[in-house]
Amino acid sequence: MITSGELRPGDPIPSEAELCRRFNSSRSPVRQAVTALRHEGLLSGGQGRRSIVQSRASSQSFTTLLSFTEWCRSIGAVPGQRTLELARRPGEDEVTASFDLEPGSSVVEVLRLRTMDGAPAMLERAVFPPEVGRHLFDFDTDTGSIYEHLTGQGVELYRAENRIDALGAPDADADQLGVAPGAPLLRVQRRTSDPRGRLLEIADDRYLPDRAAFTVVNTRSGAAGLSRFPTTDRTAS
Amino acid sequence: MITSGELRPGDPIPSEAELCRRFNSSRSPVRQAVTALRHEGLLSGGQGRRSIVQSRASSQSFTTLLSFTEWCRSIGAVPGQRTLELARRPGEDEVTASFDLEPGSSVVEVLRLRTMDGAPAMLERAVFPPEVGRHLFDFDTDTGSIYEHLTGQGVELYRAENRIDALGAPDADADQLGVAPGAPLLRVQRRTSDPRGRLLEIADDRYLPDRAAFTVVNTRSGAAGLSRFPTTDRTAS
Repeated sequence: MITSGELRPGDPIPSEAELCRRFNSSRSPVRQAVTALRHEGLLSGGQGRRSIVQSRASSQSFTTLLSFTEWCRSIGAVPGQRTLELARRPGEDEVTASFDLEPGSSVVEVLRLRTMDGAPAMLERAVFPPEVGRHLFDFDTDTGSIYEHLTGQGVELYRAENRIDALGAPDADADQLGVAPGAPLLRVQRRTSDPRGRLLEIADDRYLPDRAAFTVVNTRSGAAGLSRFPTTDRTAS
Repeated sequence: MITSGELRPGDPIPSEAELCRRFNSSRSPVRQAVTALRHEGLLSGGQGRRSIVQSRASSQSFTTLLSFTEWCRSIGAVPGQRTLELARRPGEDEVTASFDLEPGSSVVEVLRLRTMDGAPAMLERAVFPPEVGRHLFDFDTDTGSIYEHLTGQGVELYRAENRIDALGAPDADADQLGVAPGAPLLRVQRRTSDPRGRLLEIADDRYLPDRAAFTVVNTRSGAAGLSRFPTTDRTAS
């Protein structure tokens, strides 16, 4: 009802009894749905107050956020990629430890320049453990979405922890992205895991700020999606 | 149980029947709580599968995210602020329109340099409509949290839409923050509203990337907290 525009921002939602009738449902699923919408920030109120519809700015699907290819398609842009490196090599200790691998184990690393409508937009670095990364050697990483390919191979991408910050472009990145060294980049560092909590990917995406930004809604009643944290070593100061 | 560590990442949660017994509750609130935790990304599974506890990285409270002062305290840092400007002046058309005010109406603008442990961390710009901003003229903005003060005055900060991107520091910002012009800054543009959807604040916070970053968790089953969007004018290309 919110998505279709039948309910608009500022409107109170129908009573629980009305929702039960309308969706031919018992109270428990209706309450769960209302709780979920409140946590998404699409409804305010609760605790006895009638819920009010908030802005329709709905969040993207998990796949659209994860996949640059799918995201570009969703906004009508033409996604592109140039693979700069696809390598199997011993992972750094921190990486193998994250993947629960023996020190010195090989991992699969991908570095791609991502384009929107032919222009550079993002530098994509991703590291995969061997049982995930092996699927990339029978896939042409110049042709499209790694996530689509992995999902087709039965890899279950389920949960992503995103850390967002800014950095000045290192020389090599600046060169690939066509900006001056030190130019501001928007960075998303991501750890993607499966439904059982096993880490499947460590990624580092660096965007040109004039190509993409991110939004997140937080509400007092809902699960705050966004957290701020310090980047300086607090113990040293 | 997750927060206390009784349930750890990878553990299945108790059955619904066990949770009902333990919390002396009926099924409906237990289901709502599990749905909410799943949407927060703290539980995976569902749809018939037993829910598994995900990483304990829990999200911050709404207030801790909103208030730089409270955030600093939560991480053991000393928050500080120097008010560079507090002004009442006619708002730009876009601003007065957002606040549903007549064109040319006055708004209240605050510009503060925020410090952590005495060192510059963030430049904070905020614009308030008159009925909110008037509370700032009987408050010493050099002494602490504007949000704490506003909340004490009965202003209900309920929902925040955050837009996160990066930019090169303009000369004036660079000067205040003590970095070179063009140095990368992490920017959060925020629109904060009350439970009835009325806009209370338009803010623009610019962080030194070596002082703060942001995290957000997305899951396939939950409400994706984070959305990516294009910053170029898609209609022009």
